[in-house]
Amino acid sequence: MTTVQLNPVGWMSQLSQLEVSLLQQSTESELYDTFRNCCLAVLNSGVEEDNYHNLFAPYGDFDVRLIRRERGVKMELINPPEVAFVDGHLIKGVHEHLFAVLRDMLYMGSKHSEAFKNLIDAPTNLTTHVVFDMLRHADAILQDQPINMVVCWGGHSIRSEEYKYTKLVGYQLGLRGFNICTGCGPGAMKGPMKGATIGHAKQRNKGGRYLGISEPSIIAAEPPNAIVNELIIMPDIEKRLEAFVRIAHGIVIFPGGAGTAEELLYLLGLLMDDRNKDQQIPLILTGPENSKGYFEAIDQFIGDTLGPEAQAKYTIVVGNAAKVATLLSEQKANVEAYRRDNGDSINFNWTLHISEDFQTPFVPSHENMRTLDLHLDQPKAALAATLRKCFSGIVAGNVKAEGIKEIHDHGPFELSGDAALMQKMDVLLTSFVEQGRMKLPGSKYEPCYRVSL
Amino acid sequence: MTTVQLNPVGWMSQLSQLEVSLLQQSTESELYDTFRNCCLAVLNSGVEEDNYHNLFAPYGDFDVRLIRRERGVKMELINPPEVAFVDGHLIKGVHEHLFAVLRDMLYMGSKHSEAFKNLIDAPTNLTTHVVFDMLRHADAILQDQPINMVVCWGGHSIRSEEYKYTKLVGYQLGLRGFNICTGCGPGAMKGPMKGATIGHAKQRNKGGRYLGISEPSIIAAEPPNAIVNELIIMPDIEKRLEAFVRIAHGIVIFPGGAGTAEELLYLLGLLMDDRNKDQQIPLILTGPENSKGYFEAIDQFIGDTLGPEAQAKYTIVVGNAAKVATLLSEQKANVEAYRRDNGDSINFNWTLHISEDFQTPFVPSHENMRTLDLHLDQPKAALAATLRKCFSGIVAGNVKAEGIKEIHDHGPFELSGDAALMQKMDVLLTSFVEQGRMKLPGSKYEPCYRVSL
Amino acid sequence: MTTVQLNPVGWMSQLSQLEVSLLQQSTESELYDTFRNCCLAVLNSGVEEDNYHNLFAPYGDFDVRLIRRERGVKMELINPPEVAFVDGHLIKGVHEHLFAVLRDMLYMGSKHSEAFKNLIDAPTNLTTHVVFDMLRHADAILQDQPINMVVCWGGHSIRSEEYKYTKLVGYQLGLRGFNICTGCGPGAMKGPMKGATIGHAKQRNKGGRYLGISEPSIIAAEPPNAIVNELIIMPDIEKRLEAFVRIAHGIVIFPGGAGTAEELLYLLGLLMDDRNKDQQIPLILTGPENSKGYFEAIDQFIGDTLGPEAQAKYTIVVGNAAKVATLLSEQKANVEAYRRDNGDSINFNWTLHISEDFQTPFVPSHENMRTLDLHLDQPKAALAATLRKCFSGIVAGNVKAEGIKEIHDHGPFELSGDAALMQKMDVLLTSFVEQGRMKLPGSKYEPCYRVSL
Amino acid sequence: MTTVQLNPVGWMSQLSQLEVSLLQQSTESELYDTFRNCCLAVLNSGVEEDNYHNLFAPYGDFDVRLIRRERGVKMELINPPEVAFVDGHLIKGVHEHLFAVLRDMLYMGSKHSEAFKNLIDAPTNLTTHVVFDMLRHADAILQDQPINMVVCWGGHSIRSEEYKYTKLVGYQLGLRGFNICTGCGPGAMKGPMKGATIGHAKQRNKGGRYLGISEPSIIAAEPPNAIVNELIIMPDIEKRLEAFVRIAHGIVIFPGGAGTAEELLYLLGLLMDDRNKDQQIPLILTGPENSKGYFEAIDQFIGDTLGPEAQAKYTIVVGNAAKVATLLSEQKANVEAYRRDNGDSINFNWTLHISEDFQTPFVPSHENMRTLDLHLDQPKAALAATLRKCFSGIVAGNVKAEGIKEIHDHGPFELSGDAALMQKMDVLLTSFVEQGRMKLPGSKYEPCYRVSL
Repeated sequence: MTTVQLNPVGWMSQLSQLEVSLLQQSTESELYDTFRNCCLAVLNSGVEEDNYHNLFAPYGDFDVRLIRRERGVKMELINPPEVAFVDGHLIKGVHEHLFAVLRDMLYMGSKHSEAFKNLIDAPTNLTTHVVFDMLRHADAILQDQPINMVVCWGGHSIRSEEYKYTKLVGYQLGLRGFNICTGCGPGAMKGPMKGATIGHAKQRNKGGRYLGISEPSIIAAEPPNAIVNELIIMPDIEKRLEAFVRIAHGIVIFPGGAGTAEELLYLLGLLMDDRNKDQQIPLILTGPENSKGYFEAIDQFIGDTLGPEAQAKYTIVVGNAAKVATLLSEQKANVEAYRRDNGDSINFNWTLHISEDFQTPFVPSHENMRTLDLHLDQPKAALAATLRKCFSGIVAGNVKAEGIKEIHDHGPFELSGDAALMQKMDVLLTSFVEQGRMKLPGSKYEPCYRVSL
Repeated sequence: MTTVQLNPVGWMSQLSQLEVSLLQQSTESELYDTFRNCCLAVLNSGVEEDNYHNLFAPYGDFDVRLIRRERGVKMELINPPEVAFVDGHLIKGVHEHLFAVLRDMLYMGSKHSEAFKNLIDAPTNLTTHVVFDMLRHADAILQDQPINMVVCWGGHSIRSEEYKYTKLVGYQLGLRGFNICTGCGPGAMKGPMKGATIGHAKQRNKGGRYLGISEPSIIAAEPPNAIVNELIIMPDIEKRLEAFVRIAHGIVIFPGGAGTAEELLYLLGLLMDDRNKDQQIPLILTGPENSKGYFEAIDQFIGDTLGPEAQAKYTIVVGNAAKVATLLSEQKANVEAYRRDNGDSINFNWTLHISEDFQTPFVPSHENMRTLDLHLDQPKAALAATLRKCFSGIVAGNVKAEGIKEIHDHGPFELSGDAALMQKMDVLLTSFVEQGRMKLPGSKYEPCYRVSL
Repeated sequence: MTTVQLNPVGWMSQLSQLEVSLLQQSTESELYDTFRNCCLAVLNSGVEEDNYHNLFAPYGDFDVRLIRRERGVKMELINPPEVAFVDGHLIKGVHEHLFAVLRDMLYMGSKHSEAFKNLIDAPTNLTTHVVFDMLRHADAILQDQPINMVVCWGGHSIRSEEYKYTKLVGYQLGLRGFNICTGCGPGAMKGPMKGATIGHAKQRNKGGRYLGISEPSIIAAEPPNAIVNELIIMPDIEKRLEAFVRIAHGIVIFPGGAGTAEELLYLLGLLMDDRNKDQQIPLILTGPENSKGYFEAIDQFIGDTLGPEAQAKYTIVVGNAAKVATLLSEQKANVEAYRRDNGDSINFNWTLHISEDFQTPFVPSHENMRTLDLHLDQPKAALAATLRKCFSGIVAGNVKAEGIKEIHDHGPFELSGDAALMQKMDVLLTSFVEQGRMKLPGSKYEPCYRVSL
Repeated sequence: MTTVQLNPVGWMSQLSQLEVSLLQQSTESELYDTFRNCCLAVLNSGVEEDNYHNLFAPYGDFDVRLIRRERGVKMELINPPEVAFVDGHLIKGVHEHLFAVLRDMLYMGSKHSEAFKNLIDAPTNLTTHVVFDMLRHADAILQDQPINMVVCWGGHSIRSEEYKYTKLVGYQLGLRGFNICTGCGPGAMKGPMKGATIGHAKQRNKGGRYLGISEPSIIAAEPPNAIVNELIIMPDIEKRLEAFVRIAHGIVIFPGGAGTAEELLYLLGLLMDDRNKDQQIPLILTGPENSKGYFEAIDQFIGDTLGPEAQAKYTIVVGNAAKVATLLSEQKANVEAYRRDNGDSINFNWTLHISEDFQTPFVPSHENMRTLDLHLDQPKAALAATLRKCFSGIVAGNVKAEGIKEIHDHGPFELSGDAALMQKMDVLLTSFVEQGRMKLPGSKYEPCYRVSL
């Protein structure tokens, strides 16, 4: 049995004895198993595999323990994967990521428990506080930063040409001083960071930030890539999405599958909220020349379901990485002006309204999926919210451990509603499958849903 | 009416909207008046005056307000003292101190309210957690620091020769890389910092730390001096004392009055606790050649009351500043070894046991003072605790607003107990009065106590 | 006509008026044309082209001028290549490189002119002083650096598989904290830097150094790649080679052509000098699995000409990037011990003896090439020196402007000597040609030499 | 015999072997004795003594040697003064100062020898180049600094009340972000630095610069005080004066003796040069209330000799430290505008014309002093230059080793010229003597001059 003891880094190196007690309580909770899995995923950083089973299979005897000391806590790894070590030393970035997992999953979990709510008199938005507090606690909200954070969304499984294009966009963004935030993982979540690294190097920018925001149920399927230098694990997909949109000064969407569709629908749902009509969040859909068809299909679907008002919220750029970056550069002044005029922070978009419907975690059970209100005849924002949930469920069924178990036990989700809407859904989903966007290559994709036409 | 708006600095510049709501709730509480007074004291930084009434009298129309913004909170000063400004700009150190007051008094106040206790299963020491959390939150617990923090105690009202000596000791400490922590204010709390500044400069040490730990009821009487570059306001005298002893790598006591006696007795009380018998906290009592008599009197009193065991805990050095610093330097290795051997933190002494009796706030009412168990016939640690409370009450009656009001309304505290003990108390207190240690010069000292012999 | 004015950066931003006068004198010298060309090469940073004619052709109207100001000097670019700009702003790295060119070519040129020699009484080695002074002046000799500088040599024109392998080696070196120094340019000079960038990022090492050492006559053929963050232009190839070996803590040689052979022979020549017999300079020849034949050929040639003593100076590693890095890591302690034992600097190898024969610039004229003493029957170090010159001439004939002109005007160089030796030369050179190592793909290689068998 | 070996710091830690050879050549030169004495003075940093004989007497067996290593040079102190050590370790500031002495006296001496002149074609001002080069080499010309350098002149021997006032002015300057440059030594050269330290601390300014510019013949009489964190030793008084005026953004003159008069006359001489008529160099003469008479006398003397035009160049402020600082703050914009409009550097005043008469070293021999052209009937700038020399000679006779020897051997200097002028000189000099400004208290001052009336 190999064991490695790790000293705490960052915030976790300064805990009170009471906090250590709370941490130890946590390790007896259900959460602990998820914690172990997240650690294992982080230790596999850089390995390209989206099947958590394949990823974890070789490490059945892996475990992680917390060791209490008078002055704090150490982490002990038992039989960790060798890939994380260089000549017997754990790679520093992985070391930091492990304590980021501990910080976010166990420590922040205790901190934001129910008891905290009692402090509040006024009807303040607790979810947004939690999102802010977790980002702040991870030192992700920096005081002195200008408008420079671009959130990049897109598939973990994309074609080689698309991947190269995401690197080019990242390079052009890096040259212009932008930092990159993605959801961790390979593909469109790695390419922009890799490209930005070179752009930053050419501009002698040593402070490049490569922010990865994940959540416990996806991190195993999408372990943080090698470039991520700030890792944050939000409690659930809804808080992860909120973190993305509140920290973004601009958003770029590359080709992707169900997860990317979820992200786009989430954002469009927010932007169609009348209270957000003046928000300045530049949104660009982009890919290489031969992804043109992909974006036409998406655009068509949005037009058919949410209408031209929604289409007006984004710009599609095909095969022109420099243009993507230039467009975002040109919008900097607007973004900043809006923040200043509204007394808002440069680094966290407080004024963006996110209704409860978008904040409440959606549990993708068969029951919940079946009863989604999939009809065109409803307010656009509500429809966007429902569609978002639908795609969220499909992501779960595709790559999240719990979702896969559900599908295995009870068969595919059933999706039903308006014939017209279901028809469009089917076309879009089928195209994702055909283009290999649902899973990494190497296995045949078995849909986790059935569209009742 | 002059008003000045201040942007938040440090941690206070990153608050969530929920936290701002909590802050605003606080401004409607009783605490607010104390907050205003602390701000006023900080704005008078460097002014030598220990009579809060004289200090505050010219500023009857001063007030401070919190202004809410989407992104956080600003502070607005109304009719602030001119002394804090240079060509119309607030001195940056004072600016930082004001937000330290806000941080500690209002924000931390909310955070550590009752609700927090519910999180705890185990019988962990909540007081120590609060002390740690406040120091950590003020960035006072630094990860990479070696053994270098010397806490200096001593009177705010000391003779010119003594003041010069405290500067010399500070200089010698600074030359040897020590930082200085005191209770804020003039006299022995300022001299060592001033001297250390020069010592640090000579050694090209730009990271010199001049830590001032105060509490709301004393800060008005002892506003932070100009050198303090880290200000922390603990909720009460007991937590302040605990902060001192847990952060100290060594302690130097200069001549002083009742407050200094309180500090010495507190520390001796801890060190006589059997569980602390191996603790390494070098303790030196020192003053210039002509303070020799003062220390003989103190030493006599300790010997007579707590016995030789207590006397063994300290070394008296007279008229030799370099020796004080050298002794502390020589003890560094012991202090570090003890911490390492016990798995303790270098920067916060977790292993020091502080019994509940020393942690529970003592309210110096006439009733409480009268019923102090002032008898020699009790365990030494208990006697030290009682004597500590007795001197604490005298400090309150001398310089704290509430205490002064109590005395004004109900006459001096009555102290009674063993004839032998009372005799010794009387001798010691009388010598403090005669040596002008109770109050700054310029006013006749009217004792706030009566010893029943 | 587009013009861009550049403010000086680094050392060049602080010139005295006398120095500016000297600079302006220089611009009227012959050197100026070379200066212009180097600037043009730097502005094409990242463009992969080793034919200076193709590189420069589109920029016939490019020029660079120095503009005098009271406080110093500005650089004015006339019709510069667009590739160096982002949205109208010059890329910062290129900006720095331009002033590095100015610093090294014009400024240092004046400084090390003849007059300087007059200062010296003793027979000190002026060449080594110049090499040191230029590195120091470029801030390339850092005081606080440990053993961490790996010099990588290899071809600018290598196969895709070889290029990927150089990246892997760089990555493994970066993971182990090594910095990379190469000769600037593409291929084996770029790959290790690119790989190290990722290795450094994973280890959270923000101080990664990517040192490019070039010389005026090669920089146009091998413009500095995008990663180089310290550019130094030595006056000639001999000083460039000396800079490499004195700054190296270890040397890795990848597959390459004539230039790489020159570098290997130069180093072997030094190491076979008896006064260097105890020197610790780990030397590894490495490439991917399918470069095995290449290294066998080289090894054979060295064995046949310089003998087993020379072969003992290097280790050949095939297809194992991690092993290369691990071997160098393991040698760190030896390198450091040797330096310390000899009172030598960690960051500049003063004790390495370099005889005059290796320091004196070799001018590759037809005459000089023809009269090279190419016989096996001479001391090994002398033979190495001669072979080094021979390959140096071939590099000039291949890619340096002057050399190419010579060949164009007078036909190929004639190489003659021992039949046995010439036979071996022919075999080696022919294999370089066949493997496409003499020039970048896209043009047919026309040998610039003729071996008289 | 105690010996201490010191590793080189700063620039001196990176010397080539050729430079080490040059250094060792220097140690055999006459300069060496001066070097030893400067080292001794620096080791006595902070000791208040202006009689070099008293200072040096106890250290007859002190010596300093350079030890050659392969990688550079170490300094060995033999029997150094204990005052420079703390628990056996040399104070870091003193360590830095020692290598500053080596850097400036030996190293720069070689570098600027005659040979350098040969490089120059054009009639460029070599003296100014040397002044600039020495400041630059000492890292005293910082690129990113705004208008913030105040040069303070004044006596080393001043009254206690005056000393306190110089501290107050320094404090007010420090509060406003000004750095302080003085001539090293006690009195008015130390007070402003000490005050500024506190001002900087209050404003949380950790980058405070306390620049001391000395010269070999004065440093023994005025060893650098404890606060100086940048020490530069110019080759002679004329280059030292030039360094002061070119680095200054404003100048404050406190009460002083002959040296202060020399400085004032030097500056007035420059400002009366017609080519400098637009120069922006705020000049303030200031002292506490009871120095009023002193400044009236100076002002009278200037008015009588150089006329109202000269008087218009300065402002006299009496007893108002804040006003001094505010006046300088208000002039910042003018100073900056002038530099920018003239394309001049912010950190070195190149546009200030200094005629050869002010640059050529004046040797204060009896012959040179006797033949000074002390007549009112000459151009004002010329008269200022002559008067400057006269006071320069008196300073030499008072405190410089060579001057004192001259006086000892040949009696006092004889000053003669216009009766009217001589009368005024006599009055002024006599007042300096009576006010104790010529020498530190403790010895009777014996004039080194005789005014022939």
